[in-house]
Amino acid sequence: MNNINEIATNAWQGYEANKNLDLKQRAVLLNTIAQHIEALGQELVQTIQAETNLPEARILGEKARTVNQFRAFAADCENGNFLNIVIETAVNDSTPQKPDLRTMNIPIGPVLVFGASNFPLAYSTAGGDTASALAAGCSVIVKAHPAHILTSRIIALAINDAIAACGFNQNIFLHVEDDEHNTVATALVQHHLIKAVGFTGSPKVGKLIWNLANNRTQPIPVFAEMSSINPIFILPNKMEENFSTLATTIAASCLLGCGQFCTNPGLLIVLKSAATNKFIDELKIQFQNAATPKMLHQSIADNYRKTSEQVLNQSTVSLIAVTNNTAKADEVIPTLAVVEANAFINNADLQMEVFGSFSLIVICNSILEMEQVAASVEGQLTCTLMATLNDFEKNQKLIEIIQEKCGRINSNNVPTGVEVNEAMVHGGPWPATTDSRFTSVGLAAIKRFLRPLCFQNWENQTLPTALQNQNLWNINRKINGIVTKNNINS
Amino acid sequence: MNNINEIATNAWQGYEANKNLDLKQRAVLLNTIAQHIEALGQELVQTIQAETNLPEARILGEKARTVNQFRAFAADCENGNFLNIVIETAVNDSTPQKPDLRTMNIPIGPVLVFGASNFPLAYSTAGGDTASALAAGCSVIVKAHPAHILTSRIIALAINDAIAACGFNQNIFLHVEDDEHNTVATALVQHHLIKAVGFTGSPKVGKLIWNLANNRTQPIPVFAEMSSINPIFILPNKMEENFSTLATTIAASCLLGCGQFCTNPGLLIVLKSAATNKFIDELKIQFQNAATPKMLHQSIADNYRKTSEQVLNQSTVSLIAVTNNTAKADEVIPTLAVVEANAFINNADLQMEVFGSFSLIVICNSILEMEQVAASVEGQLTCTLMATLNDFEKNQKLIEIIQEKCGRINSNNVPTGVEVNEAMVHGGPWPATTDSRFTSVGLAAIKRFLRPLCFQNWENQTLPTALQNQNLWNINRKINGIVTKNNINS
Repeated sequence: MNNINEIATNAWQGYEANKNLDLKQRAVLLNTIAQHIEALGQELVQTIQAETNLPEARILGEKARTVNQFRAFAADCENGNFLNIVIETAVNDSTPQKPDLRTMNIPIGPVLVFGASNFPLAYSTAGGDTASALAAGCSVIVKAHPAHILTSRIIALAINDAIAACGFNQNIFLHVEDDEHNTVATALVQHHLIKAVGFTGSPKVGKLIWNLANNRTQPIPVFAEMSSINPIFILPNKMEENFSTLATTIAASCLLGCGQFCTNPGLLIVLKSAATNKFIDELKIQFQNAATPKMLHQSIADNYRKTSEQVLNQSTVSLIAVTNNTAKADEVIPTLAVVEANAFINNADLQMEVFGSFSLIVICNSILEMEQVAASVEGQLTCTLMATLNDFEKNQKLIEIIQEKCGRINSNNVPTGVEVNEAMVHGGPWPATTDSRFTSVGLAAIKRFLRPLCFQNWENQTLPTALQNQNLWNINRKINGIVTKNNINS
Repeated sequence: MNNINEIATNAWQGYEANKNLDLKQRAVLLNTIAQHIEALGQELVQTIQAETNLPEARILGEKARTVNQFRAFAADCENGNFLNIVIETAVNDSTPQKPDLRTMNIPIGPVLVFGASNFPLAYSTAGGDTASALAAGCSVIVKAHPAHILTSRIIALAINDAIAACGFNQNIFLHVEDDEHNTVATALVQHHLIKAVGFTGSPKVGKLIWNLANNRTQPIPVFAEMSSINPIFILPNKMEENFSTLATTIAASCLLGCGQFCTNPGLLIVLKSAATNKFIDELKIQFQNAATPKMLHQSIADNYRKTSEQVLNQSTVSLIAVTNNTAKADEVIPTLAVVEANAFINNADLQMEVFGSFSLIVICNSILEMEQVAASVEGQLTCTLMATLNDFEKNQKLIEIIQEKCGRINSNNVPTGVEVNEAMVHGGPWPATTDSRFTSVGLAAIKRFLRPLCFQNWENQTLPTALQNQNLWNINRKINGIVTKNNINS
C-alpha cells in the first residue's frame, strides 16, 4: 500500500496547489493543456487508430471536442460563475444580530477518473471528467484505460508538459496504470484522501466502484455513467406520415460508429399498424445492407456477440434482420430483433445494454401498452419521441412517463450526437448514472466536484479574494439578493 | 406491504399533481401552508411544551422561522430561479447542425422526510426538508417523529387544511406514523416510487437509511444530517488578549438550550499557556454555575448520561467541571472535560457527539499539534476560529486544514444560531452529512430535490411553459450565454 499512499498523498498536494491558483491562473492551465493536446499530430492519430480502430475523421473530431472542452472550462474560470458566490451582509440592528455570511464553491478534493473505452480522447484521460475536475480546482488521478493505454500515455504527457510550461505543481494531474485486477484503482477508491470518482463504463464495474465508495468510513460521491439503451418511441401519427424517413434516420443512428455510443438507440417502441410493418421492412433492409466495420477492440466485439446472443436466446425475442455482409471476428454484426410489448415488460433481461449496432423493436398493441413499456424501462441518458403535433396533444400521459426516465428527451431527433454546451444534460436516473442530479457533459459537469463553503463573520482581509469587499476578480456575485459586479461598501 | 404500496402510490400521484402546478400556484400553496401554521395558537405551543420541554419563547421563534422558510421558498417559486433554465438555440448552418437545447430543473419525485427530535417545527414535519421538497415540486411523506407525535399531527393537519384551501391534491403531503421498529419508514426507503430521502438525526439511523437506499435496485439520493461536534479553535494571540470574553461567549454557546443543537460546540481546541489556564478556570466556573433545564425528553437525557460517561470513562479524559446544581433525571448536567491533543488524535471514540451541554477541551503543546488535531477531526457542519489578524497571518496552514473539514467556518463568532438565508450552508463532509455538496438550510436546500432535464429539438408549443419562446412566467433564463427575461425570437 506504500505506493497507493504515495499516489494519494501526491494527489492531495496537487489538490492544494490547484485549489490555491487564482482563477486566471487556472484558466491559463486549462488553455495550455488545450494547446498541448491540439499540437499533438500524426503520432496521436496513428496510436488511436491502432488501439481503437476508429477512423481518422472521427479521431480528429473527437480531438477538437476535447480541446474545446478545456477551452470552455477555461472561459468558465475567467468568468468565475461556477463559484456561485452568495453574500448576505451583516445586519447589526436586528435581534439576534444577523452575521455576515459569504459563500462560495470550493473544490471537493482529489478526484479519481476512469475513462471510457469508446472515446479515447473526449471521455478519457483528458476527457470531460478531467477537464471539469481541474477547472473546479481539484487534482485528478486518471487510471489509464487498458484498451488504449498508449493513447493515454501520450495525452498524460501532454498534460504534464502543459503543467510544466505553466510552472505549476505536477501533482495536479497524475496518471496511473493498473494490473488486470485493478489493484491500484480499487485501493484508490477506498483511500481516505480521494474525495470523488468519475467513471464511464459498464454497470458491473460502475456498481463495484459505487459500493466500494459507499462502504468507506467516509463515503464519497461517485458519478458513474453506466448503461443506457435510449428508447425511441414512435407515435402512430408520425409513423403513418413518415415511416420511410424514420426508417432511414433511425437506421443511420443505430449503425453510426458500430453503435458504440452511450446514446445508441437500442430500443424502438412502436404501435402495431400497417405503417409500422412498412417501417420495419425498410429498417430490416438497412440492417441487412449494413457494413461491418471493426469494433473498438476484440474484447468489445466478443462482448457484443455474447450479449446480443443473450437477448436473442430469450424465447420471446425474434431475430428479424442481420447484415448480409460477412463480419470478421473483430467486426460488428448489425442486428435487429423484435419482441412483443407484453414480453418486454415482464423481462428485465431485455433491458441489458448490447454495446454495438443491436436494436430491439418492441411491438405494442395499444397506447396503453406503450405507456406500460415506458413505465417499465430503467433510467436512461436519453429518450426520444418521434411524434407529430397531433401525437403530442393526444399522448400527454405517455410523454410525462417518458420524462421521468431520462436526462435528455429528444423530439423528432436521434439521440446520437451530443452537443457540448451549457444546456446539455448527459446524465439520467439509475442505472444510466448513479446520480440524476448531475451531468458529465457540458459546463454543468463541474458541479459534481464542488461543494459550498460559508464564511461567517470574517474580517475582510482574511477572506478569500473572491469574497472580499472589493471585487478584485470582477466576477458576478449575488449580494443581498442582487447579482452584481459591484464592490461591497465596508 | 399493501399499505406501503398504497402510501407510495398516493405519494406518486401527489408528486404528479405538485409537479404540474405552475410556479404561481405552487407559491400560493407554500404561502397558504405558512398562513395555516402561523394561525396555530396556544394548542400548538402547549403541545410542544408537553412533548419537548422547550420554553415558549423558543417555540415562538422556531414557529416564526418555520413560517418564514415556507414564505422564502414561495418567493423562490415566484421568481423561478431554481429552475435554472439554460437554453441554447439551434444553429442550422453549422456542421453538424446544432440542435435546439432547453434545460430546466424538474422535481426528483416523492421525497421521504424524517424530522429531527430537537426542532419540532423548523426541522420536522413542516421543516426545511418538507418546504424545499414541496417548493421543488415533489410530494412529501413525513414520517412523524415519535418524540413529538402530537405536534406532528397538528402540523400535518395544518398542511392538509392548506392544501384543501388551495383545492390541490391531498397526496402532495402525506403524514405517516410508525411502530417502534420503523417498519413503514424502512419499507418506504426501499420502495421504488420513493426518489429521495431527507433525514436529520443520529449517525446510527442515518447510516442505516443510507445503506438501505444504496442497496435498492435503483439507489436514490439520501441527504442525512447526522453528527457534528463543531470544533472551536482558539488561537494563541486571541487567547492572550481575550481569554475572559472567550470564556463567557463560548460557555453561553455551549450551555444554550441544554446544548441540544446540531451546531453545539462540543470541542474546544486550545494551546497550552498561562492565558489558556485562565480561560479554562473561567469556563469551569461558568459550567459549575450552570442551570440544569429539562432536556427534550427522557430518552435524550438518558442518552446524554450514557454518551458523556462513555467519553469520561476514557482513561485519557479528565472531568474538570460539572454543574454544582443537582440535576433531576430528565435534566441536563453541564459538563466540561479535558484531554491532551496526542490522546485525542489517537482515539476516534472521542469524536462521538454527546448531544447536550458537554464540551471537551483539547490541549495542544504546539501549533503543529493543533494542525494535527484539525487534520484528525471528522467532517463537521461548522468549525470556528477564534483568532486575531495576527493569528490569521501566522496560521494559514491550520486555517486551510480546517476549511477541509466543514460546510461553514466562523471567525470570532460562535457556531450556534443558524441564519436562514441564501448564503447559509448547513451541510458538510461526512459524517456531518452524507453529501457535502448540499445544504439543508436556506434556499439552496431545494437543489437536493431537483434534477436537470434537457429538451432537444422540441417544437415551441410542445415545450413546458417555462421553456417556450415567449417568457410567459417572466423569469430569468440563460439564453445563448446571457441571462435575460426576453422572449426568444422564433
